[in-house]
Amino acid sequence: MTYDHFFAEALMRLHEERRYRVSAEMERLAGRCPSAIWHSSQGSKPVVMWCSTDYLGMSRHPKVVAAMMVTAINTGVGAGGTRNFAGTNRPLVELECGLADLHGKAAALVFTSGYVSNQSAISTIARLIPDCLILTDAFNHDSLNEGIRQSGAEKQIWHHNDVAHLERLLAAAPNRPKLIVFESLYSMDGDIAPIAVICDLAERYGAMTYCDESHAVGMYGPRGAGVAAREGVMHRIDVIEGTLGKAFGCIGGYIAGTHNLIDAVRSQAPGFIFTSALPPPICAAAIAAIQHLKESEKEREQQQKCVARVKAFLSAAGLPLMATATHIVPVTVDDSAKCRLAGELLLRDYGIYVQPVEFPTMAKGSGRLYITPTSLHTDDMVVALADALVDVWKRLELPLRLQMRAAA
Amino acid sequence: MTYDHFFAEALMRLHEERRYRVSAEMERLAGRCPSAIWHSSQGSKPVVMWCSTDYLGMSRHPKVVAAMMVTAINTGVGAGGTRNFAGTNRPLVELECGLADLHGKAAALVFTSGYVSNQSAISTIARLIPDCLILTDAFNHDSLNEGIRQSGAEKQIWHHNDVAHLERLLAAAPNRPKLIVFESLYSMDGDIAPIAVICDLAERYGAMTYCDESHAVGMYGPRGAGVAAREGVMHRIDVIEGTLGKAFGCIGGYIAGTHNLIDAVRSQAPGFIFTSALPPPICAAAIAAIQHLKESEKEREQQQKCVARVKAFLSAAGLPLMATATHIVPVTVDDSAKCRLAGELLLRDYGIYVQPVEFPTMAKGSGRLYITPTSLHTDDMVVALADALVDVWKRLELPLRLQMRAAA
Repeated sequence: MTYDHFFAEALMRLHEERRYRVSAEMERLAGRCPSAIWHSSQGSKPVVMWCSTDYLGMSRHPKVVAAMMVTAINTGVGAGGTRNFAGTNRPLVELECGLADLHGKAAALVFTSGYVSNQSAISTIARLIPDCLILTDAFNHDSLNEGIRQSGAEKQIWHHNDVAHLERLLAAAPNRPKLIVFESLYSMDGDIAPIAVICDLAERYGAMTYCDESHAVGMYGPRGAGVAAREGVMHRIDVIEGTLGKAFGCIGGYIAGTHNLIDAVRSQAPGFIFTSALPPPICAAAIAAIQHLKESEKEREQQQKCVARVKAFLSAAGLPLMATATHIVPVTVDDSAKCRLAGELLLRDYGIYVQPVEFPTMAKGSGRLYITPTSLHTDDMVVALADALVDVWKRLELPLRLQMRAAA
Repeated sequence: MTYDHFFAEALMRLHEERRYRVSAEMERLAGRCPSAIWHSSQGSKPVVMWCSTDYLGMSRHPKVVAAMMVTAINTGVGAGGTRNFAGTNRPLVELECGLADLHGKAAALVFTSGYVSNQSAISTIARLIPDCLILTDAFNHDSLNEGIRQSGAEKQIWHHNDVAHLERLLAAAPNRPKLIVFESLYSMDGDIAPIAVICDLAERYGAMTYCDESHAVGMYGPRGAGVAAREGVMHRIDVIEGTLGKAFGCIGGYIAGTHNLIDAVRSQAPGFIFTSALPPPICAAAIAAIQHLKESEKEREQQQKCVARVKAFLSAAGLPLMATATHIVPVTVDDSAKCRLAGELLLRDYGIYVQPVEFPTMAKGSGRLYITPTSLHTDDMVVALADALVDVWKRLELPLRLQMRAAA
């Protein structure tokens, strides 16, 4: 029997459904962020990246880079094994203290990625609660869904951000443990969960809460502790999950909660136990980023200013912007072929890298261009982005809204 | 309803079963590897680590550390997002080329950890093969088992390294696709799979093969390509999985195989798609380690010499060494309480860090001390290790074998 045809056929299906994707090769330039070199078969050229989760440019912050370098010299690159086997490293212990402090929790636990943290933590937590019912938001990230699936626990999906629906589901399961799983900030629609109401419901119906703050930590709330902190309800959430790979500019994920919960997950989660620890230079870099963003408002202010500017310019130009209350700026394109083409033209002809997102992330036939303004984009870059988008819209005969108001 | 008691109870059960573990805090010293500083509530003291998967000391190799530093300066720490969203980074592309070359395969794909590579690759591969039957070795690592579980495919477990049993299972399922999942080198018993026979059987019964070489890459075979390469059968294996976190001294995992297989996994595996890419400085460090170990035999020779010396000294001293044909040196202790105590005494009184492994990894009541000699342990360290073990054995009244032969 030959097997390669199974994989060739899977690829053919993706091509037929126009779902086959190739990642552009981008060489990010620390000194000129958000500029990068795009390497393709046609050669190399400079581009501006408008598509990254390094929202505050912390990956190239001198303190962060220096922390990685010093630690690499002192302790080497890798951790040398799992934490049980090769011991835990000092920067990892310090990182967990810093994260617990950030979220006002007793303890924190670091995983090798945000994806792994959700997958491992939820599956372990739910397994430790007999007869646990998981109530999960319909728009939750794949990593949360994977953790729920692996837990084997019963789950019920509540309509996205619909607290009335959540309440009906809670009320219908009065005499059993319940875990509410949600995100504070959903990256696809750029919208915010009604966290305070979810906490009210959790308290009223005796449920536990697990909140993914991946797209919010570093960027919102006092000391960058996230949206729940901004809304004054962080202390009411049982488990806060976050990532070190977006605003903190590194890689890794974590949960923060009570001593017992963190210690139980540490002791029981296979995805934590049987995997090499995060390298000390990564931990040190993350510590530097978190510490800096606890003290500095500058990056958050600059990013928010840039977000407002991008929204104002694109809106004034008549581009079909989705309204969001966050740093996520999706531009809708009601034709997925044109959406993909727009991304290609922007990259090839205007040196602007924006990722088109299509089916299955979007409904079939439609698409979106995701623009993520960072603290490092300049005013000139915003103008160039708006001009390029308008030009591409005209070339592709996409509709521009008539706008009366001038650019902000 | 309160939830903390669920976690407190889980911890109590672990304590009752004597399974509760605390990771020692080790500050590895790049310049004096395998020495480290052990930080505990009693203060800090220097120790020698005999327990690490940084088998060849590559995590502190000047080329590896320099590659991390230069790349951190040039591109920053983090990758800035998933590969689909933020683009793929140049060191990652080069790393995958180097890995494909190492294993003589058409392509390779890098994941954020070895654990994730097994979990994501196997679950995706098996899902793409309709009616796939997975035949899995009984001693396979948790990450392989997790991938199998997530695939939802039917599985049958063959007795560890028992090719007669494997053949019976293969013969019993003639008319369906079959995937044989195994490791080349099992870290718990330090034994080697009969890879050539497995390949024979796979060809005879039309099965596909997936071989985890995590504990072998960098250390065995020409250019450090692993045990399958050493035995001249690497080209007969469909998928080779390896880690960047052990002999290569970094973090991350990978698979190597045909273009179609790698491209299909890249396009379909959630654990690959929805997670931030490995940071460029990590990729660059891994490239340096792999390249160095393709060319240099020195580290492999030094490690093997140290392994032979440890085995000879411990055996001559009458310590109950398990016979292995690999770099894994397990010392058996038929009393799990004394096993744990031995680890504590070695660390506290002799400055030697060796990890005791007990239930559930071992059968209940028994334990093992895992010793992993590296290329950087000196002859004096080996003597000190043997002396300390003998001393601890006497203090704990553990049996020493009478040995006639002198130390090698």
